[in-house]
Amino acid sequence: MTNLSNHSNQQKPSPMPFGRYRPFEPVTVPDRTWPSQRITRAPRWLSTDLRDGNQALIDPMTPARKLMMFELLVKMGYKEIEVGFPSASQTDFDFVRQLIVEDRIPDDVQISVLTQAREDLIERTAESLAGAPRATIHMYNATAPLFKRVVFGVTPDECIDIAVRGTEMVMKYADKHLAPIVGSQDFGYQYSPEIFTQSDTDFAVAICEAVSDVWQPEAGREIILNLPATVEMSSPNTYADQIEYFSRGLTRREHSAISLHPHNDRGTAVAATELGLMAGADRVEGCLFGHGERTGNVDLVTLGMNLFSQGVDPQIDFAVDGGIDEIRRTVEYCTGLPVHPRHPYAGDLVYTAFSGSHQDAIKKGLEDLERRAAERGISVREIEWEAPYLPIDPKDVGRTYEAVIRVNSQSGKGGVAYILKAEHNLDLPRRAQIEFSRVVQDHTDTEGGEITPAKIWEVFSAEYLDRTEPLRLNSVHTSSAAGEKDQLTVNVYVDGEVRTLQGEGNGPINAFTNALNEMVAEEQAANNPVYADRGDVRVLDYHEHALSSGGDAIAAAYVECAVGDQVVWGVGLDANIVTASLKAVVSAVNRA
Amino acid sequence: MTNLSNHSNQQKPSPMPFGRYRPFEPVTVPDRTWPSQRITRAPRWLSTDLRDGNQALIDPMTPARKLMMFELLVKMGYKEIEVGFPSASQTDFDFVRQLIVEDRIPDDVQISVLTQAREDLIERTAESLAGAPRATIHMYNATAPLFKRVVFGVTPDECIDIAVRGTEMVMKYADKHLAPIVGSQDFGYQYSPEIFTQSDTDFAVAICEAVSDVWQPEAGREIILNLPATVEMSSPNTYADQIEYFSRGLTRREHSAISLHPHNDRGTAVAATELGLMAGADRVEGCLFGHGERTGNVDLVTLGMNLFSQGVDPQIDFAVDGGIDEIRRTVEYCTGLPVHPRHPYAGDLVYTAFSGSHQDAIKKGLEDLERRAAERGISVREIEWEAPYLPIDPKDVGRTYEAVIRVNSQSGKGGVAYILKAEHNLDLPRRAQIEFSRVVQDHTDTEGGEITPAKIWEVFSAEYLDRTEPLRLNSVHTSSAAGEKDQLTVNVYVDGEVRTLQGEGNGPINAFTNALNEMVAEEQAANNPVYADRGDVRVLDYHEHALSSGGDAIAAAYVECAVGDQVVWGVGLDANIVTASLKAVVSAVNRA
Repeated sequence: MTNLSNHSNQQKPSPMPFGRYRPFEPVTVPDRTWPSQRITRAPRWLSTDLRDGNQALIDPMTPARKLMMFELLVKMGYKEIEVGFPSASQTDFDFVRQLIVEDRIPDDVQISVLTQAREDLIERTAESLAGAPRATIHMYNATAPLFKRVVFGVTPDECIDIAVRGTEMVMKYADKHLAPIVGSQDFGYQYSPEIFTQSDTDFAVAICEAVSDVWQPEAGREIILNLPATVEMSSPNTYADQIEYFSRGLTRREHSAISLHPHNDRGTAVAATELGLMAGADRVEGCLFGHGERTGNVDLVTLGMNLFSQGVDPQIDFAVDGGIDEIRRTVEYCTGLPVHPRHPYAGDLVYTAFSGSHQDAIKKGLEDLERRAAERGISVREIEWEAPYLPIDPKDVGRTYEAVIRVNSQSGKGGVAYILKAEHNLDLPRRAQIEFSRVVQDHTDTEGGEITPAKIWEVFSAEYLDRTEPLRLNSVHTSSAAGEKDQLTVNVYVDGEVRTLQGEGNGPINAFTNALNEMVAEEQAANNPVYADRGDVRVLDYHEHALSSGGDAIAAAYVECAVGDQVVWGVGLDANIVTASLKAVVSAVNRA
Repeated sequence: MTNLSNHSNQQKPSPMPFGRYRPFEPVTVPDRTWPSQRITRAPRWLSTDLRDGNQALIDPMTPARKLMMFELLVKMGYKEIEVGFPSASQTDFDFVRQLIVEDRIPDDVQISVLTQAREDLIERTAESLAGAPRATIHMYNATAPLFKRVVFGVTPDECIDIAVRGTEMVMKYADKHLAPIVGSQDFGYQYSPEIFTQSDTDFAVAICEAVSDVWQPEAGREIILNLPATVEMSSPNTYADQIEYFSRGLTRREHSAISLHPHNDRGTAVAATELGLMAGADRVEGCLFGHGERTGNVDLVTLGMNLFSQGVDPQIDFAVDGGIDEIRRTVEYCTGLPVHPRHPYAGDLVYTAFSGSHQDAIKKGLEDLERRAAERGISVREIEWEAPYLPIDPKDVGRTYEAVIRVNSQSGKGGVAYILKAEHNLDLPRRAQIEFSRVVQDHTDTEGGEITPAKIWEVFSAEYLDRTEPLRLNSVHTSSAAGEKDQLTVNVYVDGEVRTLQGEGNGPINAFTNALNEMVAEEQAANNPVYADRGDVRVLDYHEHALSSGGDAIAAAYVECAVGDQVVWGVGLDANIVTASLKAVVSAVNRA
């Protein structure tokens, strides 16, 4: 293997033009403290589904869909909701007006609107909010060198001046149009140096300090400093370093809410957010299921559920209205975009186990949970969750493990066995599980595709329960007396002919196999060619259990039989436990 | 805002049963060094698309699709490919045999197969590889406490014994079935303590040391120690801590390849991998686009492209066969599952800018790149990439920014202008961009949905080029002499009537507006009611440029006119630059 180990060192360059790119140069924070921190409570959440999310949809939401999304967000528990960019779009302006005029904003929810730092846009933004009970104006300007140079052609001083004068204008036009809430805690101000991650971090601190000098945050008058990774440019630890560095640089840290606004260009927005929170941030902006420009904003669902899975209250109800599937359906309807089948916590496949070993482990884990819950006299929903391959209990978000289990040709024994147990109360012995899994696997190897629980039952019945050739049990009579061997009389169809067999043995199963073996021996002695290849039947293993409790319970019997040189399992179901076990022997013989 | 700021501290608990979960307890590595590391070269990659990926598909791949996937992986440059779990599935066994018998494994590619640590399975695994030119056997057993206790019921010592005896059996059956490659670098061994992340890290070190004691790694005989996060249970920094801790504990570190195998349950598998590489890992296992159990294995495409975007050779060709879209189509065909529209680097929407300010910035950024490339006499494809909102040049993976641009009711001026420039060579003056964007926005606000480049052109033509009421230019004659004002004679349709107008001025445009204004004044003097509301025409701004080079070039003229109290832009296209500019005036008058 050393040839391959060294391979990547010595390999010729790939044809990709990687030389056009240079590594991101992060701020240096050698004494960073975030890697030893833990997240012990939920941050403040801002949903920008109706702004950053909506603006990046192929079909932007209609007013009716916007309202549906707003109401979903409120129901889930989001308290800060960015509802539009009213100075840039008449549609957004009208939606903000609708929320206010129709009195749709609950008392504990603060709406927020975005604006650029231009006087006409700021005034229009303030106008859009007239009459709002509470609101935040969110202003941004470009601070990244590329933007300053190429897009706007401004110097750093001019850049700071734009932010300072913009903040003054926000205060001016808030005074003019929002007098009832200005000066109270109901009017909020948020400033974003855009794109924070691509800006010099010292410059970002300087411009936020200058903005804060104007806003004068103090107790009861916070400033939200939002630090966008509008394009994700580096690994998430770098974002955390930038956040920790920024946080240290603020003079009014206690009156400043540091807010994260990550995008997902490198597929690490969730991680960047989590490490950013460890680095001291207070607040997170994102979208449900990660909508937003290009790869999307950070996904608020994954972030919240990640907290939940660690025992931290996410402050959001991800099971509202019946469960995460209902949330997902609403978001899919509003956005016109799907949630991927592998999306954490919400995708179609994420509570599914395909691998047989996974399925087997989950089965044992769930049984262990049930047992331990029963010992403590509590329900499984109350016991501390711990199950292989299921990071959370699917039921906590209205999903099920059972409903989505699939068994395919890659699967081993556990999944099939779980279906039989969960849906039919059949608890197959381990070797019987293995045998039946092979039966199922042969089936799926041949036909391909998934196998449904219904199909599993069909295959199981056909294989173990419904065979009637050569044997079919008709009636059974047993007698047993202390100290004597059990006597058995059975009426069976053998190759379609009714026969009465009699046998004795250590219990009815032994008596039955003895009777069968005698019959075969007699027929072979008579040179009956039908019986030429039929071997003796010996029972190797035996299990029986009731399918349910009560007097009318059905018993399930499993016998492992050697029939000639074959080893096969048989299964029998009957209200009578003796009949069930004999049926199991019949099943094994018929399968041999 | 302090009310909301404090809100999350004082808020009542959500209805979610978070109390059932406990935080992941990580290993403590206070002197961790990974946060200061950088990734400067690609790790070794192993694709498990045909094993972990395939086993988690709703419809597992048919043999033909498996072969298509294998050939794609080889073409892209993957050198280690896990091709199945042959002891668990006849389909997998047959596929391994097919690769070997049909001699489909290139000289620089090593296939790998997975097995559990049971003698019968190990022998069957070795049998599947008979005749392979190179191969790795990958054995795992359960080391996580939950698995040891609930699933397998083994003590820690028994657990180590299973791994040690399994390793011995791998060596025994390799000797028996794979004699031609055993002892050479062509036979590899990989061991996975399952689930590493949920195992005590000291125990994981101990069991890997015990396995290494059997395998005896040395120069030319490495051992691959694969550390699965089969279920992602914590933030990615914790995985990095575990990797750094594990790496420090090995006694034969230089002959051990530390391999990462992350899954994506918390949406942070890419981050966990990157931080794990910073912590010292050598090798990564994953799947294209992140297939695999539940939320999937880590996505090899995002990982590779993340390296690429930082100037590091990914050692993989993500533009093979024409581009990432072709790779994506093949994977979607083989797996039967879609790649999400927002999937990093490959989704439909990820090189799309929806926001007007983004579109404007991208336009300026691309123009700046073109200008700088031209200054240096190189092509844009050669210059160091730097563009707003596009972390990589889409062309480097066979994609385009232009092809996917969409303009919707959220958009401002830049996107529309870019389409006109890119597809029609029209370089609208800034204020004309703003005006036309409003036209487009009115259109999309009314109709909703995206607007295509074709539709933008249709709207542009209807608005600026095709209006013929009240004016339509018929013919133009000009004469100019040094020291005299220009003379102009134009033949125009006015409200459908042919008229010949004559005027003079400082150039033909001035002469034309003078002629128009005189005509209007005459008609108003004659009390013609049609002209009652027509105001004077004054030209405020004027731009003209050629659409292309050469003698037959078309000129585009843009004039900003005050028509009465309205300010409107007009656009004219003509081979004659004078006619083009007069058409632009006509366009403005007709729009007023």
